[in-house]
Amino acid sequence: MKQIYFFNEGNRDMRTLLGGKGANLAEMTQLGLPVPSGFTITTEVCHAFQANHGELPAGLMTELKASLIELEKRADKKFNDPENPLLVSVRSGAPISMPGMMDTILNLGLNDQTVQGLAKLTNNERFAWDCYRRLIQMFGNVVFQIPEQRFEKELSAVKADRHATSDLDLTTDDLKEIVKRYHNVYLEEINRPFPQSATEQLTEAISAVFTSWNNDRAIVYRELHHISETLGTAVNVQMMAFGNSGDDSGTGVAFSRSPVTGENRLFGEFLKNAQGEDVVSGVRTPKPIQELADEEPEIYEQFRAITEQLEQHYHDMQDVEFTIEHGKLFLLQTRDGKRTPKAAVKVAVDQVKEGLINKEQALLRIDPEQISQLLHPEFTAEQLKTKDVLATGLPASPGAASGEIQITAAAAKAANDAGHKVVLVRQDTSPEDISGMIASSAIVTSRGGMTSHAAVVARGMGTCGVVGCAALNVSEEDQCVYVGDQKLPVGTVISVDGTTGNLYVGEIEADSAAHDENLQQILDWAKEAGEVAVYANADTPADFEQALRFEAAGIGLTRTEHMFFAPERLIEMRRLIVAKTAEDRKPALAALKEMQTEDFKALYRLAEGKTVTVRLLDPPLHEFLPHDEKELNETAADLQVPVEDLRKRVVALKEVNPMLGLRGSRLAVTMPDVYAMQVDAIISAAFALQDEHILVKPHIMLPLIASKIEMEVLRNRISDQIDAACEEVGRELHYQVGTMIELPRACIEADGIAENADFFSFGTNDLTQLTFGYSRDDIGQFLPAYLEKGLLPADPFNTLDQTGVGELMEMAVTRGREEKHSLPIGVCGEVGGDPSSMQFFDRIGIDYVSCSPFRVPVALLASAQAALKHQYRYREQKEQK
Amino acid sequence: MKQIYFFNEGNRDMRTLLGGKGANLAEMTQLGLPVPSGFTITTEVCHAFQANHGELPAGLMTELKASLIELEKRADKKFNDPENPLLVSVRSGAPISMPGMMDTILNLGLNDQTVQGLAKLTNNERFAWDCYRRLIQMFGNVVFQIPEQRFEKELSAVKADRHATSDLDLTTDDLKEIVKRYHNVYLEEINRPFPQSATEQLTEAISAVFTSWNNDRAIVYRELHHISETLGTAVNVQMMAFGNSGDDSGTGVAFSRSPVTGENRLFGEFLKNAQGEDVVSGVRTPKPIQELADEEPEIYEQFRAITEQLEQHYHDMQDVEFTIEHGKLFLLQTRDGKRTPKAAVKVAVDQVKEGLINKEQALLRIDPEQISQLLHPEFTAEQLKTKDVLATGLPASPGAASGEIQITAAAAKAANDAGHKVVLVRQDTSPEDISGMIASSAIVTSRGGMTSHAAVVARGMGTCGVVGCAALNVSEEDQCVYVGDQKLPVGTVISVDGTTGNLYVGEIEADSAAHDENLQQILDWAKEAGEVAVYANADTPADFEQALRFEAAGIGLTRTEHMFFAPERLIEMRRLIVAKTAEDRKPALAALKEMQTEDFKALYRLAEGKTVTVRLLDPPLHEFLPHDEKELNETAADLQVPVEDLRKRVVALKEVNPMLGLRGSRLAVTMPDVYAMQVDAIISAAFALQDEHILVKPHIMLPLIASKIEMEVLRNRISDQIDAACEEVGRELHYQVGTMIELPRACIEADGIAENADFFSFGTNDLTQLTFGYSRDDIGQFLPAYLEKGLLPADPFNTLDQTGVGELMEMAVTRGREEKHSLPIGVCGEVGGDPSSMQFFDRIGIDYVSCSPFRVPVALLASAQAALKHQYRYREQKEQK
Repeated sequence: MKQIYFFNEGNRDMRTLLGGKGANLAEMTQLGLPVPSGFTITTEVCHAFQANHGELPAGLMTELKASLIELEKRADKKFNDPENPLLVSVRSGAPISMPGMMDTILNLGLNDQTVQGLAKLTNNERFAWDCYRRLIQMFGNVVFQIPEQRFEKELSAVKADRHATSDLDLTTDDLKEIVKRYHNVYLEEINRPFPQSATEQLTEAISAVFTSWNNDRAIVYRELHHISETLGTAVNVQMMAFGNSGDDSGTGVAFSRSPVTGENRLFGEFLKNAQGEDVVSGVRTPKPIQELADEEPEIYEQFRAITEQLEQHYHDMQDVEFTIEHGKLFLLQTRDGKRTPKAAVKVAVDQVKEGLINKEQALLRIDPEQISQLLHPEFTAEQLKTKDVLATGLPASPGAASGEIQITAAAAKAANDAGHKVVLVRQDTSPEDISGMIASSAIVTSRGGMTSHAAVVARGMGTCGVVGCAALNVSEEDQCVYVGDQKLPVGTVISVDGTTGNLYVGEIEADSAAHDENLQQILDWAKEAGEVAVYANADTPADFEQALRFEAAGIGLTRTEHMFFAPERLIEMRRLIVAKTAEDRKPALAALKEMQTEDFKALYRLAEGKTVTVRLLDPPLHEFLPHDEKELNETAADLQVPVEDLRKRVVALKEVNPMLGLRGSRLAVTMPDVYAMQVDAIISAAFALQDEHILVKPHIMLPLIASKIEMEVLRNRISDQIDAACEEVGRELHYQVGTMIELPRACIEADGIAENADFFSFGTNDLTQLTFGYSRDDIGQFLPAYLEKGLLPADPFNTLDQTGVGELMEMAVTRGREEKHSLPIGVCGEVGGDPSSMQFFDRIGIDYVSCSPFRVPVALLASAQAALKHQYRYREQKEQK
Repeated sequence: MKQIYFFNEGNRDMRTLLGGKGANLAEMTQLGLPVPSGFTITTEVCHAFQANHGELPAGLMTELKASLIELEKRADKKFNDPENPLLVSVRSGAPISMPGMMDTILNLGLNDQTVQGLAKLTNNERFAWDCYRRLIQMFGNVVFQIPEQRFEKELSAVKADRHATSDLDLTTDDLKEIVKRYHNVYLEEINRPFPQSATEQLTEAISAVFTSWNNDRAIVYRELHHISETLGTAVNVQMMAFGNSGDDSGTGVAFSRSPVTGENRLFGEFLKNAQGEDVVSGVRTPKPIQELADEEPEIYEQFRAITEQLEQHYHDMQDVEFTIEHGKLFLLQTRDGKRTPKAAVKVAVDQVKEGLINKEQALLRIDPEQISQLLHPEFTAEQLKTKDVLATGLPASPGAASGEIQITAAAAKAANDAGHKVVLVRQDTSPEDISGMIASSAIVTSRGGMTSHAAVVARGMGTCGVVGCAALNVSEEDQCVYVGDQKLPVGTVISVDGTTGNLYVGEIEADSAAHDENLQQILDWAKEAGEVAVYANADTPADFEQALRFEAAGIGLTRTEHMFFAPERLIEMRRLIVAKTAEDRKPALAALKEMQTEDFKALYRLAEGKTVTVRLLDPPLHEFLPHDEKELNETAADLQVPVEDLRKRVVALKEVNPMLGLRGSRLAVTMPDVYAMQVDAIISAAFALQDEHILVKPHIMLPLIASKIEMEVLRNRISDQIDAACEEVGRELHYQVGTMIELPRACIEADGIAENADFFSFGTNDLTQLTFGYSRDDIGQFLPAYLEKGLLPADPFNTLDQTGVGELMEMAVTRGREEKHSLPIGVCGEVGGDPSSMQFFDRIGIDYVSCSPFRVPVALLASAQAALKHQYRYREQKEQK
């Protein structure tokens, strides 16, 4: 087995064997670009090294020695040659980039003799000794784990002796003294001298890099980014090029296009007479790459042409490191450049226009999660530099805003009416807080998870929100928010970053999001490519308009309960709940029916024939009743009922676990007239729209169905009602009656339920709650510990739990379609907009997802990517056959 | 296809074809017993009749006519013969008895002529005309749906005319007048006369009986008793025997043994010169059957011998109807006799002793549910006759008791300490009420279902209980309980029937349950026969002792949380929860550990080597904290912490859906030292018992495990702790660490979880809650409606939902044993003691159930029956091959 590849022996497809850096160095060499000679030790050697308990495998040394002789020949320099020493770097390079996680050693080959050669070569004795000093220190630390402080102590002693305030004050002689002292450190600490043999230095350095694959920070990074531990790293041994050889030398980094805006021009920095680490350390300020055009027009043009060639070759924007040694350009690395969301979208669209890539490639190149950042204002890193984080919660709804603290919905609304920007801070929110939430620029809660009421509503409105911020203690009594010992009275201005979950004291001006034509183009392409359609969750015309702007295919979920919280409706709803007889309930039902009819007319009118899926009332009735004594008294007065009667009703309806109580379709069983009223309103709205010659497709969705018989009875009731209404006036109405699939039992009996369902829509929030036994509202108490200890891979309300919840979903899809072959099946929980869940949905045959308007673009792109990956896999399988 | 079978052509194995009554009449005929001649029209004719839209099938009439001629021959009487008329009854008789649900017509063959013959034959003209009058009325109503009132109107008119106050005042002439008027009713109502032809009467009557298979009450009965609609009914046509032919005639019903006590002697009643309906109508009071021995010793002896013969023949106690016509005994029906639980147990054991049946038959003959009635005191039907039901709730815990109303646990305890019998009436109960519950003779709640806290605790203690009694409104403010407008102040004595769910005002003395040797015998046999072992849920030594008396195999579930509610423990628990640092928690943990060690020692000592399964702390911590202001202040004082600190902790721990919150093994993740303390206590207790040379088998059970990784981490933590403790002192301890399977996700990932589980125990309560999304505490709001409307076949917390929850369980069993072939699997939810679920458990391979001590006998018998049925099926299948 070949263990070492010279750069001219590899290519970019050998990433797994040579690592990303090695494969690209090989590719550039193959392209004839000026890359300093070198070779890559494969990741397989890394495996052997790990299996071998940290010993380099037998046979490597023979191949390594031969390779070093070959390298000397190619470099026309020799190891240990004091006149013309060959110096090399040893760098890690895994198949997937893990920047800064593993060890690197530069200038290997320096020793007491060759340091002289370097001095001559760079014409800079001080630099040579400084390099040597650094090598000894770095090598000692990386290879022999000699503590950093041990060297720092010597350095400080010499500096003190010379009254030097900074390293730059040290003379060549000082550095020589330090090298001497460092040599002694080796003797004292490890009882052996710093190795003078280049081969020995190299062998030790290679082992150290392989060892660093399993250092703590690399392990953490791999876990965080789900990188397999079995990949291993390669090691690149490359001749050093010295950008610090004089004024005709330099070093820099540049992108083939702007990683910030996506603009198609070279973007980067360089430093004359410098090595890479000078750029990084910030000791000197680099110049914009454009200045190189003035100073070294030929080199600049050569470099520019190379970056263009590389972009054409790699079909993507490149991030290139270079060094100039005595007027000669060397490339040290190329890779696909990281970019902002804005740049990602622009680069992809531009490159399609330029014919560099096709639409499919463009769609696959953009991270769907990034897109959501384009839709919301943000605080910039610059602004946050000087700010201390007050507290951190869950980043529930992206965006950024500032405003004064208000702790009740009423106060928030009042302050907003008075022209103040408001941040509503509460323990948690309930549907009654809706007007205060609408009036707020940001919403913060001390409790609840990513799918708590506050989170769902904030995302739905596109308002930035942070939830489950446990450090906050909201005290209505003291009219303030406590954060530890810090007291923030109502009125204090804070800033909320919904993208990171951070809170700050004081105002920060957020960048506002503008319409992005490139994004629009990407969404258009995504819509063509995706197989899973994307609908929106929309309860109001405003929501729906926003969703339509984002290319939603229709409404997958209208939560009618949200329509009942406006004050003039809430009172009717309460009248209904408090009424003792069917007769007493009629006036309230009639009033609510009128209002609901208008709600549905508005949505149908906007839909222009697109599907509007209305879910009948879902939450428990007690959500509509007063929650405190004051409200109780007011409501009793409004309803003209004795306070005690109302109180009794409130107590009677209270539940221990409302999530598992009298709600959803169970309401249709215990109180049939409410659903009948809603269906009536749907019929009236549909007939009214027909009169306006607008196409209407009402989809009616039953929540919380548990069994075949329940579906059968309730479905027939609705069908009978609509059919009778149509017959009475001699009309036709094309409607569908479907069901949420959100109880584990519904998944199990999906075949029976499908008999009477025109469509299924997974309620993944409830399904996840029940499959795990996790309450969305209470998970904040233990989710952080579970994530931290690796007991959960992710918040299952954000990223579908494919093992558990997913298996139930797959069961439901299979069983449902066994009964009804072409049953339409959607997902309308929050994970509907989650890119990482989309491939799973695509695989199990989900027809559509429905998510909050601001997630629609993300879901559209994720859907396109899932379909494309699916097709690629299919093509690959076909080719393999 | 033969459509009619004379009684001598059939036998008892032809139940499906001939119905129960027909098959037994045939069997008795075959035995040579005196049965009036007759024949059975098969259930297949019923199917044809239904398929034929209510027309008798072609070909039946030919066969029927031939049969009637044959019947005339056998009876030596003739239809329509005024001198010696043949009269017959037409009765339904389905394969499964549906008493009184379908129609019967007697005395068919009477007409204007034959009524004279009957008068002569019975020597009672008035009786003959009364029979005729009744026939016309019954026939008109059953066959032609002429409203009953139409006839009653004529009857009343004649009675008024004659100044008769009762039917008995009517003379023969009056009856003749009535018959005349009835004939007119036919002409007026259906425009045709009452059919004079016996054949016509018969044909119409047969059709009417077949039609009655689908009358409303028959349909309801079938649904209620899960009787298939496809069975159909047979029709029995039988010569009338007249028990009212004079003083040498009579009629009666008797059991071969006492259906009340099981005593082995004839038990029944008879009436001289009477027909069956006279006994039923209560117009005359029948005499004990023993008096027949004095009056008609020969007939008595003949009858006694026949009942003995029938019992020997049927191998079961028989319920026999007979008629004596002119000194000649006729048998009209025999069937297995219904009996009280006490009788059922005694008869079965006696019959085994007598060699009549074997143990297996004895075990299969007793309804397990009946057994529980033997374990608890009861109100007798006699006592309840004069009582009005105050309100009805769910029969949560069987038994009966009276006592004064108390509405707080503290008041209940105080009243009991003062020597009063107490009924604790609350909206619901929580673990803190435990001392009040112990002090009460009965427990009643206005909320909650069959597995609410109150229900579970009541059953566990064997205290009678009624829950979810929604008509009650408990007002602490008014110190009373409201039932509608009725106010029952604290101190009012009420009586509670936990077997029916009824409440009564005032005291009723309950029959107390005594030790029953026959029951003990049955349990011993059951233990031998059962394949599913029966363990007990026991949290205290008292529970465990009770369970051991009932033959429990060990403890399947000790809920350790119940151990923390005694005042001296609750304070330590609170100290623990309120502590801010690990250091602050130590003293509370140490105190609790001492107490837990004593708890476990007591249980281990009683177990004498039997398995004791300890479930680590399961409920959310807030259950242990104060619930009202008063308690909050007291607790703060006790703990010497500021009230505000305590309040904050209470608020912080409060949950929206505690069922789905921070509880179970999640506590081990967020607060590891509590489980560590419990494991420590188990170790200490086990070591202490080892010192006493008592065998200990600690089984430790983790609650609410959701995933493989969670099980792995927590299991290893426990194993490491025990192994370290053993190693430290050089001991060995044979322990097991298993898990509850109570989350749907755990069923799905059961294979992964099994890797680190020594046993599984299904928590069917939680699993049912999550599979359906039903909260046990809140289901009372909609369960009644669901049951009433047929949307649920049964309360799924009482009877396992095999379709939904059962499929998840089967999945878990299959997957768990795929990973670990011989994994022990139990069920420790409430359905563990449910007989109808037991067969399912037996089928899917459940090794054991664990239920409250008073359910142990029921479960033992159910387990034996499941195993026996299983074996029978197996034998049958083998024979078929």
